[in-house]
Amino acid sequence: MGEFDLIARYFARGAMAANPDAFGVVLGIGDDCAVLAPTPGHHWLVSADMLVEGRHFLSTVSPRRLGHKALAVNLSDLAACGASPRAFFLSLALPRADEAFLAGFSQGLFELADAHGIVLAGGDTTAGPLNINITVMGETPRGQALLRSGARADDDLWVSGTLGDARLALEVFRGTLSLPGHQFDEVRLRMELPEPRVALGRALRGLATSAIDVSDGLAGDLGHVLARSGVGATLRLADLPRSAVLGAMPQDIQQLCLLSGGDDYELVFTAPAEARERVLAAGRESATPVYRVGRIDAQPGLRVVDGAGRLIEQPLQSFDHFKS
Amino acid sequence: MGEFDLIARYFARGAMAANPDAFGVVLGIGDDCAVLAPTPGHHWLVSADMLVEGRHFLSTVSPRRLGHKALAVNLSDLAACGASPRAFFLSLALPRADEAFLAGFSQGLFELADAHGIVLAGGDTTAGPLNINITVMGETPRGQALLRSGARADDDLWVSGTLGDARLALEVFRGTLSLPGHQFDEVRLRMELPEPRVALGRALRGLATSAIDVSDGLAGDLGHVLARSGVGATLRLADLPRSAVLGAMPQDIQQLCLLSGGDDYELVFTAPAEARERVLAAGRESATPVYRVGRIDAQPGLRVVDGAGRLIEQPLQSFDHFKS
Repeated sequence: MGEFDLIARYFARGAMAANPDAFGVVLGIGDDCAVLAPTPGHHWLVSADMLVEGRHFLSTVSPRRLGHKALAVNLSDLAACGASPRAFFLSLALPRADEAFLAGFSQGLFELADAHGIVLAGGDTTAGPLNINITVMGETPRGQALLRSGARADDDLWVSGTLGDARLALEVFRGTLSLPGHQFDEVRLRMELPEPRVALGRALRGLATSAIDVSDGLAGDLGHVLARSGVGATLRLADLPRSAVLGAMPQDIQQLCLLSGGDDYELVFTAPAEARERVLAAGRESATPVYRVGRIDAQPGLRVVDGAGRLIEQPLQSFDHFKS
Repeated sequence: MGEFDLIARYFARGAMAANPDAFGVVLGIGDDCAVLAPTPGHHWLVSADMLVEGRHFLSTVSPRRLGHKALAVNLSDLAACGASPRAFFLSLALPRADEAFLAGFSQGLFELADAHGIVLAGGDTTAGPLNINITVMGETPRGQALLRSGARADDDLWVSGTLGDARLALEVFRGTLSLPGHQFDEVRLRMELPEPRVALGRALRGLATSAIDVSDGLAGDLGHVLARSGVGATLRLADLPRSAVLGAMPQDIQQLCLLSGGDDYELVFTAPAEARERVLAAGRESATPVYRVGRIDAQPGLRVVDGAGRLIEQPLQSFDHFKS
C-alpha cells in the first residue's frame, strides 16, 4: 500500500470532504496546502505535540487508544487557551503500512475529532520509526485567549477533574506498584484515554486570569504559570481532587501522583475570588467538576500545605514504595 | 541539557520575541499555544512535512543544510499556493541533545526563515529516533490561492529554474553514476539547499490557473495537476530547462532526471496563452527564470514529445546506466 492509498483509505474521510465549510476549512487534504478561512475578529491558537513510543506511550497501548491520545494531548493545549478547535494536521512515520494499526489508530483519532468538531485538514505520511506529530488549530475571539501569564496575587487556584491516576497506572506498568484488575483498568483509562477539557476552557474565557493543562505534573506545570505571571502560590494538598482508587493509597503515593503525575490533562487555572460563583457555573455548564485548591501569592515560589495549613517540606520527594 | 534549555538556547530567538507583531504572531514560544492574528480578508494556507533520515535526507548532510532543507520543502508548498509565509512550528525528535547538530541545524533553519520573513512560533522537542516535522502557515488574499485543480485546455505549461540536478546528485551518492568533484558539488547543492520559489508563487497569484511544486518528480507531480483539473498535457522534453552539468549527460539520464527527479522544488504551473507576457514579467519581478514547456490538452493523460514533436513511448522507463 503506497502513501496515497494509505491516506485515501484511512485519513481522507467523507465528513470533511462533504462539508468542509462548516469548519472554516475551504480545502482539506489533496493540494500542496490546506486552505483555511479564519473567523473574522478571532485569533488563531496553534500548538504541536510529537509522540514517540516508549516516551509518550507504551507499546502495549491499543492503536485506537493511541489515535485518541495523540489528538487529545493537542486538544488539551487548545483547552488550556480557551480555544474552540478548528483543524489539525497529522504527520505520521510508520515502520510499515500496518493495516490493523491504521484502522484502529484512525478510528480512535476520528472519534475524538468528531466529538470536538475538529477537521483533519492535511499532513504527511512516511516510512520511518513510529512517530506521530499533530499540529492543532483553534480560535478565540481576538484577545480572549487564556494565557499562563495572567495570574494575580489573591486569585483563587482551581483544578478540574481528578489528578494522579495516569501516574498511578504508569507505576503499575513499571512494576513498582500493583492494583486489583478493575482498579488498574480504571486508572489505565485515565492514562490511555485522557479527555481534553475543551468545553471547560471555552467556558472560562473572560473569567480565568490564567490557565495551563497538566501534562508534566501539577507542580511543574503550575510552576510555569507562576514564572510567567511573576507570582507564587499556596496549594492545599488535602483539597486536591483524586479518584477513589488513588485516595485509598498510602499518603506518600497520593502526594507524588497528585503533584508529579504527568498525563492528567486536567486544567489548572486562576480566577479572582469574586468570580467563584461564575467559575462553578462554568464547571456545571461544561459538565466538568472544578475544585478550589489554593491561592495565588505575591511572594514567589510554590508552597504546599497540609490539611492544617502547615507547610510540607520537600513535597516532591520520591517515596519508598517506588524504590522497593 | 533538558528540553527547556534546548529550546531556550537554540530556538527561542530574539528576533521573534522582539517584534512578533510585525508578522501577525501575537505570542510565540512559551505558552500552551501560539497566538496568531490572521490578516483580515485573507485565507490561511497550511502544510506539514515530516523528514526522516535515509528517506528525505542522507546521514552525510551537514546539520546546517538539513535545517535549511527541512524548512525549504515546507516553504515550497506555500510557494506552490502563492502564499506569503507567516509562521511555522517545528517538532524535533533527537536521539540525544547533540549541541553541534543543534547549533548547525538551527543556524540553517533561521537563515532561511529570515530570508522569507517567517517566524518560528512554537513546536515540540523530544528524545527519539531523528525526526523533523515542520508545519508551515502562510496567507493569500481570500480566494487567491493557487491550486492544482485550475488547469484548463489550451493553457500554457510552465516550469521554473532547472530540473533534475537533485536526482543526479542522488545517483552519485548511490554510486550508480560519477561526476567530477566541482560538478558534483554543484548538483549536490540543488539536492541539499533547495531554494523555495516563494517570490515567484506570489507573483503568479491571479495569473496562473494552477500550480504545484516538484518534490516527487515532474511527471508524477504534473500528474496530480492533470488529475485534479480533469485535463491532459503535452510536454516538450527538449524545452525542459536543465543545468549545464545535466545537459552534458547521455540523453536517457537527462530524460529520467528531468521527468522523475525528485527534490527539485521548482514550480510547475499553467496559465492562459494570453498571459504569456505577464508570466514572463512575473519571472523577472521575482528574479526566477520561467520556461514554457508544453500545453494543457482536453484529452486526459500526459504525452511527452521530442524536439520534432514525435511522441516518446514509455518516457519514464529506467535506463541502463543505473543498472550497470
